[in-house]
Amino acid sequence: MNEAEFITALRSLPLHEGARALEDDCAVIEVGSETLVVTHDAMTAGTHWLPSQDLADVAWKLVAANLSDLAAKGARPEGVLLGHQCGEADERFLEGLDAALRAFRVPLLGGDTIAGDGPRTISMTAIGRATHTPVPSRSGAQSGDGVFVAGTIGDAYAGFRLLRDADQTADRDSAQKYLRDKFTRPSPLLAEGERLAEIVTAMMDVSDGLLLDASRLAQASKVTLSLESEAVPFSPQFREWSSDKAVRDHALRWGDDYALLFTAPPGEGVAAQFTRIGEVIERTHGPLVLDGAVPAPDERLGFIHG
Amino acid sequence: MNEAEFITALRSLPLHEGARALEDDCAVIEVGSETLVVTHDAMTAGTHWLPSQDLADVAWKLVAANLSDLAAKGARPEGVLLGHQCGEADERFLEGLDAALRAFRVPLLGGDTIAGDGPRTISMTAIGRATHTPVPSRSGAQSGDGVFVAGTIGDAYAGFRLLRDADQTADRDSAQKYLRDKFTRPSPLLAEGERLAEIVTAMMDVSDGLLLDASRLAQASKVTLSLESEAVPFSPQFREWSSDKAVRDHALRWGDDYALLFTAPPGEGVAAQFTRIGEVIERTHGPLVLDGAVPAPDERLGFIHG
Repeated sequence: MNEAEFITALRSLPLHEGARALEDDCAVIEVGSETLVVTHDAMTAGTHWLPSQDLADVAWKLVAANLSDLAAKGARPEGVLLGHQCGEADERFLEGLDAALRAFRVPLLGGDTIAGDGPRTISMTAIGRATHTPVPSRSGAQSGDGVFVAGTIGDAYAGFRLLRDADQTADRDSAQKYLRDKFTRPSPLLAEGERLAEIVTAMMDVSDGLLLDASRLAQASKVTLSLESEAVPFSPQFREWSSDKAVRDHALRWGDDYALLFTAPPGEGVAAQFTRIGEVIERTHGPLVLDGAVPAPDERLGFIHG
Repeated sequence: MNEAEFITALRSLPLHEGARALEDDCAVIEVGSETLVVTHDAMTAGTHWLPSQDLADVAWKLVAANLSDLAAKGARPEGVLLGHQCGEADERFLEGLDAALRAFRVPLLGGDTIAGDGPRTISMTAIGRATHTPVPSRSGAQSGDGVFVAGTIGDAYAGFRLLRDADQTADRDSAQKYLRDKFTRPSPLLAEGERLAEIVTAMMDVSDGLLLDASRLAQASKVTLSLESEAVPFSPQFREWSSDKAVRDHALRWGDDYALLFTAPPGEGVAAQFTRIGEVIERTHGPLVLDGAVPAPDERLGFIHG
């Protein structure tokens, strides 16, 4: 049983109404007159981080990834629970956790700490309060809507490459430092998510690659997203690092952007403050059209990392 | 850095008001006029279950352990999030999960599924609605209160022993089947927790051994619990399985009971429906007095399994 089969099987279990059929990043719980948004993300050594990575950055990214899911729902973080497996460099983990909680002003609610051998798994549950209802989903995109990105794409990929190649000049280069920080210390777009929640027809965060996540939004909404790769927002630092079109194309298929992808009807003033990268059209051959062509069925659209 | 040091270090991070200084099993979140109770438990292969165990029972126990924490707060389960690492026997895991969700009438809210090698870690976050505020804590026991147990102690230990010794006669013996089921398929005392929430001064679930958990409640309340081992409730099935005092004493230090331990003022009628095992006295030498004597400092009180 592979991961996709497991998730399909989960859908036949008793599901909460707010589980959104397990097709969204978050669950939604109505509590009195308020709506809570809940998400859970797990990371495991070897798959989600490399032995050489600073555990402080791993902790930071665990917080950022969870809060990015809340951002995509326009939710304000209330607190997080940590599922921690003790191991090496826990001091560094705690430093990164502390820094991220302070940076994003979200307190620790609790969790569980366990011992255990072998590759460690670390997880987090984040709870937020919706600032707008209905809480945005992946499934509301309508033909005729524009497709937008808040934030930039590719910085984390560039930062990863710079770190991997251990470019010693990077310490003296502020653009390269910016890119490396975007990989090691991403920031969820919480303020942007809150502003967008009331005007979007669909929204999700971009964490597994822009094209893969766009195809997921299209699938959930039963539409096709027609995107223009030239319109995708790259930062000046990214453009300085590489002007190679093949590198940019690869960045569309990489992950860890923690940008927001959303659709909005024409004429939405707030949306116009972000980058329009295409439009929603009626479902044709598949979920995605890129630069006027349908991607080949076997083309890798993003990072399916489990 | 060991687990205790890690948890101590966590207490210096930014904590949510409802985190109860990380000294309780659950966190508490006020949402409008309602109060939510949130808990997270993780289990890892090798430490929390053995390779020979049926993954259906592992899934069941993961649900039961989380809901038992909610029961100790008098909270009604709203839903659970699963953090799952794919691996062997996932079909069995799903069967046990399905059975537990249906048995305890709690729906799945969402979660995360990851790949990964090595020993698996599986976790759950449970969210409940408080039926009574203030939500019971570990820290309210007062000198003069009675100490009570809801449920029975030792059945899971007996069941574990029966399974370990693979007693083939057990299939034909309903008492032994009862004990084995109490180990493999425990039930959280949700209804009892709800009834007790309004009368207890302190409450927690017994999952790591009665004496260890009692000492934790005493520590949190800054009192001493004086317990009588003869008063501890053992089921008729347990008594039939063993009348050996040494075995009973061991059962007080084993775990997986998922009973409730609580303190209540004298004269509380509801409490009288449960088993009184001792009284709360002013803090003397330590957290625990057992049969009139202070346990030796190095005595193993329970199962510290991380």
